[in-house]
Amino acid sequence: RIDPDRLWDSLMDMAKIGPGVAGGNNRQTLTDADAEGRALFQSWCEAAGMTMGVDKIGNMFATRAGEDPDALPVYVGSHLDTQPTGGKYDGVLGVLGGLELIRTLNDLGIRTKHPIVVTNWTNEEGTRFAPAMLASGVFAGIHTQDWAEDKVDAEGKRFGDELDRIGWRGDEEVGARKMHAMFELHIEQGPILEAEGRDIGVVTHGQGLSWTQVTVTGKESHTGSTPMPMRKNAGLAMARILEKVEEIALSHAPHAVGAAGHIDVFPNSRNVIPGKAVFTVDFRSPDLSVIEDMEARLRTEGQAIVDAMGLEIAFEKVGGFDPVTFDDGCVTAVRTAAERLGYSHMDIISGAGHDACWINRLAPTAMIMCPCVDGLSHNEAEEITKEWAQAGTDVLLHAVVETAEV
Amino acid sequence: RIDPDRLWDSLMDMAKIGPGVAGGNNRQTLTDADAEGRALFQSWCEAAGMTMGVDKIGNMFATRAGEDPDALPVYVGSHLDTQPTGGKYDGVLGVLGGLELIRTLNDLGIRTKHPIVVTNWTNEEGTRFAPAMLASGVFAGIHTQDWAEDKVDAEGKRFGDELDRIGWRGDEEVGARKMHAMFELHIEQGPILEAEGRDIGVVTHGQGLSWTQVTVTGKESHTGSTPMPMRKNAGLAMARILEKVEEIALSHAPHAVGAAGHIDVFPNSRNVIPGKAVFTVDFRSPDLSVIEDMEARLRTEGQAIVDAMGLEIAFEKVGGFDPVTFDDGCVTAVRTAAERLGYSHMDIISGAGHDACWINRLAPTAMIMCPCVDGLSHNEAEEITKEWAQAGTDVLLHAVVETAEV
Ligand SMILES: NC(=O)NCCC(=O)O
Ligand SMILES: NC(=O)NCCC(=O)O
Repeated sequence: RIDPDRLWDSLMDMAKIGPGVAGGNNRQTLTDADAEGRALFQSWCEAAGMTMGVDKIGNMFATRAGEDPDALPVYVGSHLDTQPTGGKYDGVLGVLGGLELIRTLNDLGIRTKHPIVVTNWTNEEGTRFAPAMLASGVFAGIHTQDWAEDKVDAEGKRFGDELDRIGWRGDEEVGARKMHAMFELHIEQGPILEAEGRDIGVVTHGQGLSWTQVTVTGKESHTGSTPMPMRKNAGLAMARILEKVEEIALSHAPHAVGAAGHIDVFPNSRNVIPGKAVFTVDFRSPDLSVIEDMEARLRTEGQAIVDAMGLEIAFEKVGGFDPVTFDDGCVTAVRTAAERLGYSHMDIISGAGHDACWINRLAPTAMIMCPCVDGLSHNEAEEITKEWAQAGTDVLLHAVVETAEV
Repeated sequence: RIDPDRLWDSLMDMAKIGPGVAGGNNRQTLTDADAEGRALFQSWCEAAGMTMGVDKIGNMFATRAGEDPDALPVYVGSHLDTQPTGGKYDGVLGVLGGLELIRTLNDLGIRTKHPIVVTNWTNEEGTRFAPAMLASGVFAGIHTQDWAEDKVDAEGKRFGDELDRIGWRGDEEVGARKMHAMFELHIEQGPILEAEGRDIGVVTHGQGLSWTQVTVTGKESHTGSTPMPMRKNAGLAMARILEKVEEIALSHAPHAVGAAGHIDVFPNSRNVIPGKAVFTVDFRSPDLSVIEDMEARLRTEGQAIVDAMGLEIAFEKVGGFDPVTFDDGCVTAVRTAAERLGYSHMDIISGAGHDACWINRLAPTAMIMCPCVDGLSHNEAEEITKEWAQAGTDVLLHAVVETAEV
């Protein structure tokens, strides 16, 4: 079993870097705070006897050598970047849980046949640079590296330039590594495990995602002197589309969700009718045909709304992945570990996207989830208990040791 | 008659300062570009033999002396600040038209009994610091100077600090000046004069305005893993309120307008359900009871919308003025001048707010409007013809000379 206090202390130490405004974190990808968090993680890994490799997109791989020089490594890990108003555990638990399992193996003097690699994937959150899971997506061959490096943030800064600026571009080719298997521990970010009173979610599937950036173009004009019939109010058209997004998602309830988290109007002046509105619609479902239906309806009904108002609309898909089925063998290893350890568990579908969703295309992969209070995540108030963190990391330890073979 | 080419050249020279991205201007109040525009205006005034006074809120008063030392001045002018994506004429025509009338009087060697003062009012637009017409409002005793100086922009910079930073705080007490009368020339910013084929709008009234800043508080959470029934989506509540704003304004058509130009959601991340939405609703009508009804319905119906969704809402009035009736004598002077000069004209109600709306409380005041192409304003594509500028400035010249007495 792992050491829950040591794990918790590391979580709290990492949370001191890039603090938020309300007890959580703002350690967005490729910021100075991200660089500081990476350096701390590297120092911990080296202290635990691991060797660090970094690839050309900033993914960090800390390796604990195995006994068999020919055996492919078992990977664990997640991401250290956070939302702008994010929690202390989303992603971080998976990385530092991986570190804790290495520390535990060191304490117990256990060697494994396969090496074990603890990974920190760059830009999982996708807030600063869309899409989410960007660097694991490049690793898995979904995106090209050039495409990823050209992504720009809201201030127009390039991903590639920011990676160089913080000094975390390594020399390994992205995706050159081969994997025996991969396990990602993550908080659920939803309410199911807590409601069902289970310590462990055995993640069998992940729901798919579609991000469509919508640009509505109207005409900037004066809010006072422009008669109502002459207005081309892009903000109002956006409002109507946001209502439609809700309606479309609810029409597939409970097998779909939908919302827009990103909303900007231009020029954003109190006495100017918005001439442009840009927002990103996030649709998810475990069922690919449902996602496709929601995307299509967004385009058709969005077009109808702006046509009726005499405005223009454009749609751009800025992120997405299909629903995922995790590897049977890895899922079984997780379920078996939970049973052996006596933790209550249930099978669960991941509501969020994770690096494991891309890696699953390359190697046998599974995820372990632990509950979070009120299902709350992407919020500074995100909370878990030390016991939940312990249970999840214990299961990670056992599943990994079984797969890496003692 | 004024010199239309000289006026036009000055308009084009001023437009070079703080250029926009699409042929218009971004010369927002208390920016470096604002300071540069002020310096150019001052140099022109001094070259025309005027003396510049500046008050403690940055209002600029260029005086051409009168013959009678006891006679109060006749004021003209408007504002040189612009919207972030503003036009070249909104405000600027009124200031540089005032300068052109002085240049014309100089050319003709005409002296007036009353001094004539050409004014540039600080922060008319109200984009960077709400409310609009801020400094003329302090001048008129509507707001205290401290209240105005404490206003902050979107980056948290204080009005008073920015005034000091650009070096345009003068030493005159704000509002110390007494006025014989005031005339403001401005583009219509609406479509009526062009549609009716008139050169001159004789502004008899101004519609009133109400700005209510609305803050909806929901709960930030994950867009993927938060089930639909658990969401507290502040962006969706905002969308519903924006639709209601349209409905409320249309219920009073054609005697009211309504829209929201300012919209922000937080944390504005694609995969976070907005936990907060802040937006400003702009309602206008020539009828005070209509404005009051719209404000009240916004509060009642906004509350009902968030109650139904389990969210919170707060309303703050951040700007407003009652409908205005301009001075009969001044209005007649404008109408008579248009007739004498042979310009087609009609009475009109101003759809926008203007510094004249506040000054009207202190001294006899009227406004002159000229058409603008397609009624478009608060847009970089705002356009007028040289002939329209000439007609408006000719009428200004004659109304002012009659009032200032030769
Ligand atoms: N786990 C997590 O929040 N990932 C970000 C990608 C997503 O929006 O699902
Ligand atoms: N004229 C003008 O655009 N003034 C700004 C105040 C308003 O919104 O009416």
